[in-house]
Amino acid sequence: MSFMYQFARAAVTVDCVVFGLDDEDLKVLLIRRDLPPFEDKWALPGGFVRLEETLDEAARRELQEETSLERVFLEQLYTFGGIDRDPRERVITVAYYALVRLSDHRVQAATDARDAVWFAMDDLPPLAFDHDQILETAHQRLQGKVRYQPIGFELLPPKFTLTQLQKLYEIVLGRVLDKRNFRKKIQGMGILEELDEVEKDVAHRAARLYRFNKKEYGRMVKQGFHFEI
Amino acid sequence: MSFMYQFARAAVTVDCVVFGLDDEDLKVLLIRRDLPPFEDKWALPGGFVRLEETLDEAARRELQEETSLERVFLEQLYTFGGIDRDPRERVITVAYYALVRLSDHRVQAATDARDAVWFAMDDLPPLAFDHDQILETAHQRLQGKVRYQPIGFELLPPKFTLTQLQKLYEIVLGRVLDKRNFRKKIQGMGILEELDEVEKDVAHRAARLYRFNKKEYGRMVKQGFHFEI
Repeated sequence: MSFMYQFARAAVTVDCVVFGLDDEDLKVLLIRRDLPPFEDKWALPGGFVRLEETLDEAARRELQEETSLERVFLEQLYTFGGIDRDPRERVITVAYYALVRLSDHRVQAATDARDAVWFAMDDLPPLAFDHDQILETAHQRLQGKVRYQPIGFELLPPKFTLTQLQKLYEIVLGRVLDKRNFRKKIQGMGILEELDEVEKDVAHRAARLYRFNKKEYGRMVKQGFHFEI
Repeated sequence: MSFMYQFARAAVTVDCVVFGLDDEDLKVLLIRRDLPPFEDKWALPGGFVRLEETLDEAARRELQEETSLERVFLEQLYTFGGIDRDPRERVITVAYYALVRLSDHRVQAATDARDAVWFAMDDLPPLAFDHDQILETAHQRLQGKVRYQPIGFELLPPKFTLTQLQKLYEIVLGRVLDKRNFRKKIQGMGILEELDEVEKDVAHRAARLYRFNKKEYGRMVKQGFHFEI
């Protein structure tokens, strides 16, 4: 079967940049391609959009098919339409991105890819197509986003220490933050609830536990509050 | 001539949301369609992406062809891929947006459209396709953007009064701002240069003129400064 059109058409794909956070690293999920072009090379999970699915649906489907990852909140990042970005023909790709807690997601290569592996952001292999540019764009967007929205909190346990929170920001931002400034800022916002509990089972002196007050945050946002780290 | 593919392909278009600012209003540039579907209806300027042009180039070309507008800094907004957004077939559109000073741009309907007209944002006609949704997304993005980047300054004369600056923000944000808070905030940033000059040829008491210090702003951004109105 084939499809005919009066004018030449680009193919449309989706690509997914899924960042994973653990206690030490910011990682990104890559697959090893099993078909040309760039056979055996690492790439972002993704593939062709079907006519009967939306772009969001295509991104979720491709991610699931290639890495078995599900229930990831993918957000549209940017559409890349460079003329020669695919050596075969004109392909326009709508890129998506997400940030997940690594321990929540087990990946496995599925039907469409040989391997699906988390790579540390500071130890990346060469990538197929223009995927290094897409990844760089996603990384910048993520770093901007965590600074202006308290999305980091959702990646911590419900109760966490200020050290854990700072460490999370340091991993995503890729730089060390001043402890005193960080604590002053974050505690000054009034969206952290100080609990009457401390860490358990730690070798060092047990630190105070906190909880993110989502309700209070929502209330403050309505009144014009802007989160900023 | 026709083109054949193994799998069905969506058509890809670009659409442009160009906001225009004058002393009174925020406007948006619309064209009247001269072909079905939605013949005679108002729509955003836009059209099909050619295989030999990038998405940015397609947006610039379509805007120029349909409205004669040139040298507009279009920024990619979002890609809309709803399955039924075009009654003919599956069409994915990459939307762009821009903000210009109305007095800098004369528009005229060109080859591909019957009319090209600036409409006030609070007096819009019904729009073709999902263009009301695209326009709404662009409007929200613009309002977010002026709050966090000093782009408004580029739409004022090089020397301006604080009243002019406040009025510009009020028009874009669509709400009245408190004069004392606004002045305190904007003057506190240290990016406005107070000039030794006042307005000329005005009936009321001549107000002080200011200039945006772009160099100082650039320097401050490097040090972590964040503009926020």
